[in-house]
Amino acid sequence: MTPIKKASVIGGGVIGAGWAARLALGGIDVAVHDPAPDIRCRVEAVLANAGRAVAKLTSAPQPAPGAMTFAESIGEAAAGSDLIVEAVPERLDIKQRVYAEAEDAAPESALIASSTSGIVPTKLQAEMTRPGRLVVAHPFNPVYLMPLVEVVGGQSTAPEAIEQAMALFRDLGMHPLHVRVEIDAFIADRLMEAAWREALWLVHDGVATTAEIDDAIRFGFGLRWAQMGMFETYRTAGGEGGLRQFLKQFGPCLQWPWTKLTDVPELTDALIDTIATQSDTQSGDYTLADLERIRDDNLVGILQALKANDWGAGRTLAEHERRLMNAQAAGAEPADFAQPVRTFSRRVPPDWTDYNNHMTESRYLECFAEASDALLRMIGVDGDYVASGGSYFTVETHIRHLAEVAAGEPVHTTTQVLHAADKTLRLFHRLHHDDGKLLATGEHMLIHVDLQTRQASAPPAAIAERAAALATAHADLPLPDGAGRGIGQAR
Amino acid sequence: MTPIKKASVIGGGVIGAGWAARLALGGIDVAVHDPAPDIRCRVEAVLANAGRAVAKLTSAPQPAPGAMTFAESIGEAAAGSDLIVEAVPERLDIKQRVYAEAEDAAPESALIASSTSGIVPTKLQAEMTRPGRLVVAHPFNPVYLMPLVEVVGGQSTAPEAIEQAMALFRDLGMHPLHVRVEIDAFIADRLMEAAWREALWLVHDGVATTAEIDDAIRFGFGLRWAQMGMFETYRTAGGEGGLRQFLKQFGPCLQWPWTKLTDVPELTDALIDTIATQSDTQSGDYTLADLERIRDDNLVGILQALKANDWGAGRTLAEHERRLMNAQAAGAEPADFAQPVRTFSRRVPPDWTDYNNHMTESRYLECFAEASDALLRMIGVDGDYVASGGSYFTVETHIRHLAEVAAGEPVHTTTQVLHAADKTLRLFHRLHHDDGKLLATGEHMLIHVDLQTRQASAPPAAIAERAAALATAHADLPLPDGAGRGIGQAR
Repeated sequence: MTPIKKASVIGGGVIGAGWAARLALGGIDVAVHDPAPDIRCRVEAVLANAGRAVAKLTSAPQPAPGAMTFAESIGEAAAGSDLIVEAVPERLDIKQRVYAEAEDAAPESALIASSTSGIVPTKLQAEMTRPGRLVVAHPFNPVYLMPLVEVVGGQSTAPEAIEQAMALFRDLGMHPLHVRVEIDAFIADRLMEAAWREALWLVHDGVATTAEIDDAIRFGFGLRWAQMGMFETYRTAGGEGGLRQFLKQFGPCLQWPWTKLTDVPELTDALIDTIATQSDTQSGDYTLADLERIRDDNLVGILQALKANDWGAGRTLAEHERRLMNAQAAGAEPADFAQPVRTFSRRVPPDWTDYNNHMTESRYLECFAEASDALLRMIGVDGDYVASGGSYFTVETHIRHLAEVAAGEPVHTTTQVLHAADKTLRLFHRLHHDDGKLLATGEHMLIHVDLQTRQASAPPAAIAERAAALATAHADLPLPDGAGRGIGQAR
Repeated sequence: MTPIKKASVIGGGVIGAGWAARLALGGIDVAVHDPAPDIRCRVEAVLANAGRAVAKLTSAPQPAPGAMTFAESIGEAAAGSDLIVEAVPERLDIKQRVYAEAEDAAPESALIASSTSGIVPTKLQAEMTRPGRLVVAHPFNPVYLMPLVEVVGGQSTAPEAIEQAMALFRDLGMHPLHVRVEIDAFIADRLMEAAWREALWLVHDGVATTAEIDDAIRFGFGLRWAQMGMFETYRTAGGEGGLRQFLKQFGPCLQWPWTKLTDVPELTDALIDTIATQSDTQSGDYTLADLERIRDDNLVGILQALKANDWGAGRTLAEHERRLMNAQAAGAEPADFAQPVRTFSRRVPPDWTDYNNHMTESRYLECFAEASDALLRMIGVDGDYVASGGSYFTVETHIRHLAEVAAGEPVHTTTQVLHAADKTLRLFHRLHHDDGKLLATGEHMLIHVDLQTRQASAPPAAIAERAAALATAHADLPLPDGAGRGIGQAR
C-alpha cells in the first residue's frame, strides 16, 4: 500500500474544505480543485478554524502541516496524488465525470474516496477503468474534528483499498467504521434521516418549533447518544436482563402510533418559510461564524470530557495522541543535557484564561507539573515505573509570575536540576513564550515515595544515577534568579 | 401555588427511583410506594449513584437532603404530599387506578405528575375527580442527571398546574420543556422512536450490528446532537443562507430511499435473539453497575464541558449553581473576621487526580486561586469592579504540600491576610480536609493592577480600606508556620 504523501480534494464546500484541513493538519500535501472564484478564501477560513480547534483539542505534538495548493483542473489536482477525495454534489453523473478525469491524471495506485452521504459505491464505480480503488469515505461535519468516517466498498472494490482507507483515517485520528453491507445512506444517515423526517412532521403539524425540538434533543437523549449510542443506552436503562429484557418491556410501544410512518411532508414554500423563520428566531443572534466556533468549542470539550473517562470518541483521541507522542519520541534529536532541558510545550488553550483575560495562575503550575513529569520520564520515572510502585511527589512549590500570556500563544518550559540526592530532587522550571520572553519560574522540591506506604523512600539505583547525572551536567549553570527565595524576601 | 415540601413517588423502577433521588437531593422529603419486596434496596442504590454523580457534577452548596421513606400503600404515600409522581407501567388502567387512590388520600392542592413516555394527559386525567392538577412530566434516565423533562397538560389541566410544575423542575436544576400540543410520545420519544425503528431494521436486515450502529452515533452525529440538536446543527452546516439554503440543497434527498418507511420489523424470537446476543458481545465486559457509572461519569463530563462554554445543558447547570450559591449567601452567618476566613469548599472531583491517585498539584493552586478570588470579593473586587478596569494579579506563590487527598473527599480553605499596604496584598491560605487535617498551605503576593495599562496601580480607597481592615483584624494572629520561607530553607 502506498503511504499517502499527496492528496487532492475535488470540491471545496463544507465537506471538501473540512477534508482538506484534516489532511493538511495530518501532514499531507493537499491540492484542492473547485471552480468557485472564492475557493481559496473559503478553504483557508476552514483551515484557520481547524487549526484553532485542534490546538484546543490536544497538546500532542502534531506533524508539520502539509502544503495547501489550488489547482485549475481536476487533472492538475489529481496528478501525482496518492489519494483523490471527491466531495462534489450528490449527482451520480457529476461524480462519475470527476472519477474519469481523475483516473486519466492520477497514478494507477491512487485511492479514490467519495464523500457521498448515501449513493452506494457499486453505482459510483460502475464506469471506472480501475473500479477496485474506489471506496466511499463518508465523513461528518466538521471533518477536522468529528472522528467518524463510514468506509464502504462496492462490488468491485479491492479489499486492499478498504484496508488502506481504514489505516489512513486511523492515522488521521479518526474512527473509521467499515460498513460491510452496501445500503443507500449507509448507517448514520439512515438514523438521522428517520429522525429528521419525524422532526419535519412535528414542525409541519405545529406540535413544536425548531428550537423546542432541538431542546428536546440536547437537554435529553443527545447527551446520552454522544457517549453510548442507542443500544448500549437502552441496555443500561433496561436492568440486569440486558436488551432481551428491554425489548420485552418496551417492544409493545413500537406498535403504538409514536412516530409518523407515512411519507415525508411536502416541502411547500409555506413549510420552508415556517422552518427557516423559526430557525432564524432560534439562532439568529449568532452569526454562522459564531455558531461554528461554538460548535467546535463544544466538540472539543465533549471529546476531552470523554477522553478523561477513556471512553468512545475520547478514547480515539487518546490513542491518536499516544501515536503522535511515540512518533515524536522516535524522531527526536538527543537533548543537550548541558543546558536546561526542554520539557513541555503547547499553545495556551482558551479555557485556560480567567476574568483578567490571561492564563490563570493554576495553569502555570499545570505547565510546571507537566515539565516535572517530562523530566521524571527522562530519568526513568515513567508509567511502567509508577505501576511498579514508586513515584515522586511534589512537596513544595515556589512560583514567580513575571508576565502575562494570552490564549493561543505558544509557550514552552525548560528545566534545570538544582539538586538530586538521596530521596529529593530540586527542579527549577522556566516558562517561556516561544518568542523568548520569560513568563514565570517554578522551583519545586520533589521526594521519592513508595506508593504502597505513601512514605518517602530511596529511589532505585538506576533512577538515582540518572538524576545525579543530570544534576552534575547542570552543576556549572548559574543559580537561577529567584531560586531559594521566599515570598516577601528582597529581590 | 404550594411550595413542594413532601412528595410521593408511586412505582420504584429506574424512572421512579431516579425521581425519588432527584427530589430528595433537592431537599424534598420523599415517600416511595412500590410493592416489590426489594424496593428499599433498589431505591437506595439509585440514591447512592445519584449522590456520587451530583458530587462530581458541581461544588455548589446543596440543600440538606430530604428524608426518604417507604410506604405500604399508595394512600399512605400520598397522604400529606404536595406532589405525587406516578411512575408505573405504561397501561392506562393501572395509571388511572393510581390517580384514584392518590386523590382519595392527598391534599386537594397536590400536583399529580405522570412519568408516562407517551400517553396523552387528556386520557390520563379522564376519570379524575380534580383533573386540573394532572400534568405529564416525562423525564429521561438517569433522572438525577438528565436536565430534560417534558411537561404536557391535557384538555382539563389548569394553567397553574403547568406553571407550578415548570417552576419546581427549574428549582431542581432541570430544563422543563413545555410541550404545547398534546401528541402521543410528545417530542423526544417520537424522534427516538423513529431512529429506533430504523436501527431495528438495520439489525434485522443484517446491515450492521448493535455495536456498529452505536458507533455510527457516538463517534458521529451524537457528539453534535448533545450540544445543538438537529436544526441548529444543520443551520451551522448549511452556510450563510440559514435553513432555507440547507432545505434547498438537501431537501431532494428526503425523497430518496434513505430510511425505511414501512411498518416496524416484527420482534420475532430470532430477531430478539440476534439483538440481545449482539448487545451482549458489545457490552458484556461491563456489568450493569459499570455501565451506569460510566454513563454518569460521561454525562458529568459532558455537562461540565458544556458549562465551560456556557451552552445548552451546561448553562442549565450554571444557572442552577448560581441559584444554590445565592441561597447559601442569603442564609449564611456573618463571617468572624478575627479568625482566618473560610473562603472555598468543595469535594475533590475525580478528574482532579493524577497517576499517583491523589489530587494533582496544579489543583492545589486552583483551590488557592479560588480562595484568593473569594477573599478579593470580600474586599469589593467582584465582577463589576473588574469590569470597571481594576483587578489584582498574583505575582508570587509558595505552596507546601503536606498531605495527600483523594477524589471525593471534602476540602475547604481558610485565608489569613498577612499584609495589605499600598498596591500589595499578601495572603496565606490553608487547605484543610473537612475532618480538620491540614493538606497544604499557599502563600501569595498579589498586586493591584490597572487592566488598561496592565501595570501596578493603587486600588481605590474603598477597597484599600477593606483590605486594611482585614489585615488589622488578622494582625494579632500568629505568623503561620512556613510563611516567608523559601524552598530548601530549614524548617
